[in-house]
Amino acid sequence: MADPRFFPLSGPFSLGELAACCGADVAPGADPAARFVDVAPLDTAGPHEISFLDNRKYAAQFEVSKAGACIVQAEMVGRAPAGMALLVAADPYRAYAQIARRFHPQPAPEPWIAPTAWIDPMATLGAGCRVEPGAVISAGAELGEGCWIGANAVVGSGVVLGERCVVGANATISHAVVGCRVNIYPGARIGQDGFGFAMGPQGHLKVPQLGRVMIGNDVEIGANTTIDRGAGPDTVIGDGCMIDNLVQIAHNVQLGRGCVIVAQVGISGSTRLGDFVAAAGQAGITGHLHIGAGARIAGQAGVMRDVPPGGTVGGSPAVPMSEWLRQSALLGKMARRKG
Amino acid sequence: MADPRFFPLSGPFSLGELAACCGADVAPGADPAARFVDVAPLDTAGPHEISFLDNRKYAAQFEVSKAGACIVQAEMVGRAPAGMALLVAADPYRAYAQIARRFHPQPAPEPWIAPTAWIDPMATLGAGCRVEPGAVISAGAELGEGCWIGANAVVGSGVVLGERCVVGANATISHAVVGCRVNIYPGARIGQDGFGFAMGPQGHLKVPQLGRVMIGNDVEIGANTTIDRGAGPDTVIGDGCMIDNLVQIAHNVQLGRGCVIVAQVGISGSTRLGDFVAAAGQAGITGHLHIGAGARIAGQAGVMRDVPPGGTVGGSPAVPMSEWLRQSALLGKMARRKG
Amino acid sequence: MADPRFFPLSGPFSLGELAACCGADVAPGADPAARFVDVAPLDTAGPHEISFLDNRKYAAQFEVSKAGACIVQAEMVGRAPAGMALLVAADPYRAYAQIARRFHPQPAPEPWIAPTAWIDPMATLGAGCRVEPGAVISAGAELGEGCWIGANAVVGSGVVLGERCVVGANATISHAVVGCRVNIYPGARIGQDGFGFAMGPQGHLKVPQLGRVMIGNDVEIGANTTIDRGAGPDTVIGDGCMIDNLVQIAHNVQLGRGCVIVAQVGISGSTRLGDFVAAAGQAGITGHLHIGAGARIAGQAGVMRDVPPGGTVGGSPAVPMSEWLRQSALLGKMARRKG
Repeated sequence: MADPRFFPLSGPFSLGELAACCGADVAPGADPAARFVDVAPLDTAGPHEISFLDNRKYAAQFEVSKAGACIVQAEMVGRAPAGMALLVAADPYRAYAQIARRFHPQPAPEPWIAPTAWIDPMATLGAGCRVEPGAVISAGAELGEGCWIGANAVVGSGVVLGERCVVGANATISHAVVGCRVNIYPGARIGQDGFGFAMGPQGHLKVPQLGRVMIGNDVEIGANTTIDRGAGPDTVIGDGCMIDNLVQIAHNVQLGRGCVIVAQVGISGSTRLGDFVAAAGQAGITGHLHIGAGARIAGQAGVMRDVPPGGTVGGSPAVPMSEWLRQSALLGKMARRKG
Repeated sequence: MADPRFFPLSGPFSLGELAACCGADVAPGADPAARFVDVAPLDTAGPHEISFLDNRKYAAQFEVSKAGACIVQAEMVGRAPAGMALLVAADPYRAYAQIARRFHPQPAPEPWIAPTAWIDPMATLGAGCRVEPGAVISAGAELGEGCWIGANAVVGSGVVLGERCVVGANATISHAVVGCRVNIYPGARIGQDGFGFAMGPQGHLKVPQLGRVMIGNDVEIGANTTIDRGAGPDTVIGDGCMIDNLVQIAHNVQLGRGCVIVAQVGISGSTRLGDFVAAAGQAGITGHLHIGAGARIAGQAGVMRDVPPGGTVGGSPAVPMSEWLRQSALLGKMARRKG
Repeated sequence: MADPRFFPLSGPFSLGELAACCGADVAPGADPAARFVDVAPLDTAGPHEISFLDNRKYAAQFEVSKAGACIVQAEMVGRAPAGMALLVAADPYRAYAQIARRFHPQPAPEPWIAPTAWIDPMATLGAGCRVEPGAVISAGAELGEGCWIGANAVVGSGVVLGERCVVGANATISHAVVGCRVNIYPGARIGQDGFGFAMGPQGHLKVPQLGRVMIGNDVEIGANTTIDRGAGPDTVIGDGCMIDNLVQIAHNVQLGRGCVIVAQVGISGSTRLGDFVAAAGQAGITGHLHIGAGARIAGQAGVMRDVPPGGTVGGSPAVPMSEWLRQSALLGKMARRKG
């Protein structure tokens, strides 16, 4: 069971209620009236908890799990241990997400302005905002209703946040216009100057960075991630993008809708990603490229050319995924032969 | 036009004034008395704005740009759209930097000590400093004239900052002596213990880190970048270095003057870089190496040996650039042949 | 000599005392009663300072060092400059660590609650804690004796810290249970949501992250490093782990005892490392893997498969180290032949 010190709990709920909230089917033999108290991982769940099986790597854990119920795909029904109630869903992970959100709903923040917060008189806050101790809201900033500003976070002059944004502790935002329901994690840095200067042997000359960061709705920006503002054009993060920790997004970069950018990825200046591009951990993308919609970039890939829509690339310098796999296999075979 | 919410504007200026401030020539046919109100990117500039063309990738944008004026190299003059006034410069990007700084001069901070800032009685601040809400200036710290300390930034005991330094929001500095006009971005971490310990199966023994971070003049240190203090020798950052976001600089590293270190680069302990070394994004440099002056290191390179002055290297493990390109081409060809 | 502005000094100590504190032997000809005032690097040490030689790269520095004394391995005794007193130790770096700690002992913090710190009335602090200006201790947090919470650091609701933990300036901790003598560096982010969501073309659905971060004793967590809390299981960091700056540790990762994780490494979700695994800088480890005890991972390696106990791997995708070295050598040879 989730640690009650950190995770308040709703429920219990019946199996039928849980199935309904995620569109799953109660498998034959399971009692829709049986009640469950929480979600839990396969290996620690007990008879009053519900778990899920998504990654087949964990099928063996599933077969010996003590979970009272489990969400699975139809193919796995036959492998369940005796007595386990099953919910059948096409996408068990998504169904689990919905059920976990039922047990652990994200509460609206309790409105509060901490006495040690600093709210500039020229800032405007919507109804129901919560500003934790030490947070700073600068002149001209505009916060939508129900925003939650973490302790010691800093919202710079003129920054706009839509409704129900969450800004993590010690995060900073400047020169940015942010949509609704955006979640900015602790320590993220948004809107600082891009890395722009005219190089020269007599010294580098800083170029004023005159663009903004424009962030859509329902975006997540991970801990200690950095997103520079544009140099003249804006840096743009589309609706629904999920950005992990320690990611670098340079000036003028544009991300389409629903991009997934895993930890420690770096995207150089002026590169544009279409909708639903996925970049795995530590990948790097050179500047001034176009990465087509739905493209997928392998972990540690070094992308130096445009990628067509739907393309998959890996390696450094990156090539189409199938080619990269052949390169790796060939090199390994040759080295073993000579070894 | 730059968003006035974030970027106060000077001007307007005549084309002649703008040419003079950057040493460019007004091209034949352009009216030096014509007045312009701001800089803007090629694709959004209007008739009263001035843009620039530097990267030839954007020549097509230039040819259809609505900008009233544009800074270009001499070769591009013939490709300008009808009616566009031209400034001709050998380095259009540098000229643009100077013009953009004319429209958007960096103001000196308005002196202020925020009521919620914490200034230790044993700290000394030069004239004209601004200390934002929640910032902390510790005992024995010395700030030169006109320093600007961002909200919730922390300047540790005994730290010295020269004149007109800018410390971004939520940045921390300790055990450091910093020159003049240094710009430390939000969330940068300077002066913490280096990663030094004696390993052993019975446990690792921390080694006291007794050096400092010595930073020259006119340095930029990017958001969430980390620079550890020396273990005994100092960590040294030379005058005019430009360091991007999320860079790691380990203890005892020395950077010469004017080095350019792009985002997510890591430099291991005791490695020394000569003047004007450039390291592209995500490159890694092993410890105890010498990288000669003017060397250039490709993105994601893994440098495991010394690099001579002026050398260029790429790949992991890094080899001279020409060799790396041959390796990549050869491997690609072989894999396609077998495929 | 270490800068007294930053490093208070104990001593002087006699050579005999210093030998005794680290178990070294005073070499023949050296006077055990000779007194020394500090440690210093080989190239700057003077006649009243003691240095060490560990990395043979610095043997030439040793041969001309002006240090009054030096800690060396037995083989190096004959190469000492005339008049240098020697301490002989099997592990000179470890001996140096002990001597340096003698000259520069880590003082217990002077108990203090800064007036601008925010301590929630529902938080509990052990005796002798120091809370610097602007730090925030949230409801339900429990701090052991002698904890030192840096300026503007944020300790979240319900977080438990054992005795004598140090939390650096601007660090944040939430959803975590931390052991004793843990050192969390400035800007580290511990306990935020993992990167978990059900992807889908209609939008990604965030999955509640219901686990914690469990940290053992004597752990170091570097500046701006991020450790996400578990998704359901906990994220676990074993006793004595040393984690450098800008490291990413994803949800559900488990590190055994004494692991050494160098800067900018990324470890993906649910991967488990055995005891004393070492991962060099910028290495990446895919999710759901097992890395056996004592395994060593080269810098920039991209680990995509399990590694057996004691295994060493390098390259991306990673292969056994010997194979990687052969691959690199072979590719270099072929490219030079064709070049």
